[in-house]
Amino acid sequence: MPASTRRSSLPITDVVIDDAFWAPRRETVRTATLPQQEHMLRTGGQIEALAHAWKPGDPNEPHVFWESDVAKWIEAASYSLATHPDAALERRVDEVIEALAGAQQEDGYLNTYFTVVRPGERFTDLRDAHELYVAGHLIEAGVAHHAATGKTTLLGIVRRLADLIDREFAPGGAAEGGYDGHEEIELALVKLYRATGERRYLDLAARLIDARGTQPFYFELEAQRRGTPGYFGHVFPDRDAHPQRFREYNQSHLPVREQREVVGHAVRAMYLYSAMADLAQELDDAALRESCERLWDDLTGTKLYVTGGLGADPSIEGFAGPYELPDASGYAETCAAIGLVLWAKRMALLTGEGRYIDVLERALYNAVLSGASADGVCYFYGNPLASDGSVERKEWFGVACCPPNFARLTQSLEYYAYAQGDHEAVVDLFVAGTARFRFDETAVGLRVSTEYPHDGAVRIEIEADAESEFILAVRLPEWARQGAVLRVVGEPLDVGTVLDGGYVRLSRRWSPGDVVELELPMEPRRIWADPRVTSTVGRVALHRGPLVFCLEGVDHDAPLDAISLPRGASFAVARDDALGVDVLVGDGVADEPSGDLYPERPLGRRPIPVRAVPYAAWNNRGRSSMTVWVREAVA
Amino acid sequence: MPASTRRSSLPITDVVIDDAFWAPRRETVRTATLPQQEHMLRTGGQIEALAHAWKPGDPNEPHVFWESDVAKWIEAASYSLATHPDAALERRVDEVIEALAGAQQEDGYLNTYFTVVRPGERFTDLRDAHELYVAGHLIEAGVAHHAATGKTTLLGIVRRLADLIDREFAPGGAAEGGYDGHEEIELALVKLYRATGERRYLDLAARLIDARGTQPFYFELEAQRRGTPGYFGHVFPDRDAHPQRFREYNQSHLPVREQREVVGHAVRAMYLYSAMADLAQELDDAALRESCERLWDDLTGTKLYVTGGLGADPSIEGFAGPYELPDASGYAETCAAIGLVLWAKRMALLTGEGRYIDVLERALYNAVLSGASADGVCYFYGNPLASDGSVERKEWFGVACCPPNFARLTQSLEYYAYAQGDHEAVVDLFVAGTARFRFDETAVGLRVSTEYPHDGAVRIEIEADAESEFILAVRLPEWARQGAVLRVVGEPLDVGTVLDGGYVRLSRRWSPGDVVELELPMEPRRIWADPRVTSTVGRVALHRGPLVFCLEGVDHDAPLDAISLPRGASFAVARDDALGVDVLVGDGVADEPSGDLYPERPLGRRPIPVRAVPYAAWNNRGRSSMTVWVREAVA
Repeated sequence: MPASTRRSSLPITDVVIDDAFWAPRRETVRTATLPQQEHMLRTGGQIEALAHAWKPGDPNEPHVFWESDVAKWIEAASYSLATHPDAALERRVDEVIEALAGAQQEDGYLNTYFTVVRPGERFTDLRDAHELYVAGHLIEAGVAHHAATGKTTLLGIVRRLADLIDREFAPGGAAEGGYDGHEEIELALVKLYRATGERRYLDLAARLIDARGTQPFYFELEAQRRGTPGYFGHVFPDRDAHPQRFREYNQSHLPVREQREVVGHAVRAMYLYSAMADLAQELDDAALRESCERLWDDLTGTKLYVTGGLGADPSIEGFAGPYELPDASGYAETCAAIGLVLWAKRMALLTGEGRYIDVLERALYNAVLSGASADGVCYFYGNPLASDGSVERKEWFGVACCPPNFARLTQSLEYYAYAQGDHEAVVDLFVAGTARFRFDETAVGLRVSTEYPHDGAVRIEIEADAESEFILAVRLPEWARQGAVLRVVGEPLDVGTVLDGGYVRLSRRWSPGDVVELELPMEPRRIWADPRVTSTVGRVALHRGPLVFCLEGVDHDAPLDAISLPRGASFAVARDDALGVDVLVGDGVADEPSGDLYPERPLGRRPIPVRAVPYAAWNNRGRSSMTVWVREAVA
Repeated sequence: MPASTRRSSLPITDVVIDDAFWAPRRETVRTATLPQQEHMLRTGGQIEALAHAWKPGDPNEPHVFWESDVAKWIEAASYSLATHPDAALERRVDEVIEALAGAQQEDGYLNTYFTVVRPGERFTDLRDAHELYVAGHLIEAGVAHHAATGKTTLLGIVRRLADLIDREFAPGGAAEGGYDGHEEIELALVKLYRATGERRYLDLAARLIDARGTQPFYFELEAQRRGTPGYFGHVFPDRDAHPQRFREYNQSHLPVREQREVVGHAVRAMYLYSAMADLAQELDDAALRESCERLWDDLTGTKLYVTGGLGADPSIEGFAGPYELPDASGYAETCAAIGLVLWAKRMALLTGEGRYIDVLERALYNAVLSGASADGVCYFYGNPLASDGSVERKEWFGVACCPPNFARLTQSLEYYAYAQGDHEAVVDLFVAGTARFRFDETAVGLRVSTEYPHDGAVRIEIEADAESEFILAVRLPEWARQGAVLRVVGEPLDVGTVLDGGYVRLSRRWSPGDVVELELPMEPRRIWADPRVTSTVGRVALHRGPLVFCLEGVDHDAPLDAISLPRGASFAVARDDALGVDVLVGDGVADEPSGDLYPERPLGRRPIPVRAVPYAAWNNRGRSSMTVWVREAVA
């Protein structure tokens, strides 16, 4: 087994993030987002329902996935507590955990919907009713809460729940052969295994993964046994007429090792593939790894937006066909981009290849970050790449999966910034702060100084008590290969000589105070798209570093589609203090109306100053049109 | 009153169309389309229902507008009989008319739906139930049948029906103050007035037009009186929540003289405006004419497809906002383009201006003609300007308005090719054949020879027994102003010196055998679009003469959107014998996939032969992608 496959994330408490880009954003999540979300969950009934014995006829019937929203909020709050002690927040988290404890049944079962709305129907509607999905989020919350606070209150609750599920899904159990209609519990069980060392949680995850997509199809047997259409029967009245499509919807159309194309609901897919990568690593399962790699190639080769968004078809919140990536009418759910971050991180741990983090970074800085407003209290559910000005972020949603998912991801950035391998300290993201690695008995710190993504200089200093021999692996993004400058302890080094799997890999005996300097080329650049993508032909997307830029109508006095960029024209970087971001400014040309709807002569053109803002920062100045892909003028 | 406002169409029997473009097409309609449509109307129940006393519980409940489909078929067949005697067809038409006679009630009422499905509810659901719309089409059929055959069988039926409606809508009648939810009867009543000389049909048309859009809103009063949601209540459950939108849907939001923007259902709008133009002419109503002119400017300035299609929003089969003209997802119903032909002809008769016929010609040769397949038995309902290959013509539709509408328009081309004014013979379309005009007691014939639209030479010869002084007005299309060559009786004449209102107007004493020769420039040309039209930015539409061209996927080995045309590149004309049309061939460039979904370098390009077929001829070689608007490569 190569060294890379033994990589793992650092514990959240071993990483400090303290930089100009992320720290203020995370502070906004801590001070604005988390309280607003708690307020929404309290006024919306999600938390109250845990204590209230709802009866038919009562208002505010619990929704099948209410606890998952609560769980993600606890998880986000826990990560925040791990890095930023806050007694008041900790107390409020404890209160919610007490409510969960109160809602848990004698045998460990915990799901309000099935306890009060459909009692006696546990594990009979796995396809639609999100039962294991909810359990998965509770388990993730329990693991996070324990890691952050050391408390076992929630961890104990979710272990009892996991133990019950393990029994019910075991041979002879009520749900033998079943698996989740919305994947999530599988990756959660791997986390629970890692947190507790209990092998049976890993085995349960593997059992759920292995059962998926085998014939006869469990969900169809389940529906026959139940004799009713299921929770989404009214949403998909023609489901039985299109069995293959609805199997693909939740990736149960084929055994997972035979799956080659990303299909169906995008969030479900990302959570499934994340668990597959986890299991491939834990079980050294080559077939599972190969499936992951092929699915990855299909996604990134034909179905990923340039922002890192995914799931282009709003009708299924999921994937359309290859190269079907409409801009304004696309979907790209925030949760799906978050799911891609989860999967990409696991693929990087599994393979040791930096290209996965390249995609993670693309999704994180763009499609994920656009999910919330600058003030942290409004959210995009879908993240289209163009808009006529009719969309804007909302305070909340009836299905509120995205807001707390955004919060838990940004508050757990520590897990994504670094990785530790076998005598290998891996820097994946360029985030100012510190990280602590442990090699045998030696602790080694890295201090990263950078203004990235606003500047390309990254300085990494070794902080240790003594010399230590290890590999320092610093990811060199694909886009930075040309022009990156490396200095190791003051000596220039050609990056080409040390590039390995997408990382600058420096193996030496490091002394305290040694410094590695990496200068990434941060000139604005253009990216084109495969001509099979209809919405982007003849257009370019402006980039700088990991950031994708867009044009907003509020900055331009012509329709955005009337603007084109001459091929050679360059862009300069300018600071926008109001938005708190760097923007790109340059010269474009705008087609001018002639007065005729269909003139017989070419349109006149005028120069127009073009201002491009980071995609994630759009829609922070009221409603406005927007486009990522800008026409390019080329003869 | 200027001479032009006394213009009228020639009687159908005074025109002979005998050319290489239209005559074969019309022969296909006569020999293939009319029999197929009769078959569909017989097997579909529309004709059978006239004789069958349907009762609740019986299958095949009559549909509200079934008789309108039958009526349009009779109208089309009648036009065919007028120019091409056919005893068998005439007998079949007579049979259907006998069935209509049998279905007519004692008091003149004729509408199967209200006779057998909702008896006792006559004239209580004018908004939704198409009652006057059906009557209008029956009246048009009656007038056409009489003009073609001289028989009064159907004319008598529809006069009794019109008389009943006149009584019911008169002051004190059951439907006093009411008007049609789907405009159509108004223009039909003007035809009936012209055919019979009975002034009260014209007055009834004027009354319906004047009542429209006045407050209180009749349809809302009617709904209150009825106390039920109406025929489309289930289709538009939220109708009461958006009263303005649903008033606009059938153009009843404002009195017609105050309407300035084309809104709502496009076919309804075209039929309404046609009647307004008729009445403006008959009644010399300046306010009505001004409304027509403003509505025309709004349509042609902001809401018309380059094909002459209209009604971009499928959700209402009607108009979207200004410049909202999506290509693939647009609508452009065949019936709406036919309605535009009806309106444009009337605007030209009303104003004497050739620009209206320019638009008529655009719609006729493109958006209308695309409505049927080359073999005449499959139809487009919507006529999008781009397709991913998923659309194709169908044999029939549940709502079958378009197929017989296509048949009746092509079989009545005689009405659109010429007009007669005060000592003025007007040539509007360039169609080989003859036309007979009457000036006082003198008959003058024109013999037109041309291969238009495949060739620009148009030869017009005077056929008469003696000299005659009159104005020969030949339309000179806007696109032909540059480069048109005119010879009058052998003498070259600068067209600029005789151009008036869009016509070359030649006033002289004509001798038998005098010849006017007009040579229209037929070089392929490009047309651009206002940059506010999102779907067309950076693109051009290829034209030759009146024909709009498109690219079909079947002719190209690259995705159509990957192809662009260098600005200067020219096109040559080539014959496609299989399609029976001239096509354009030229050189384009195709962007090439690089292997990356998002390459960091500009895409490679390769030369690609481009072949453009007339828009109306597309989808005659199986399913294929298609685009009218082609990217233009320009720095």
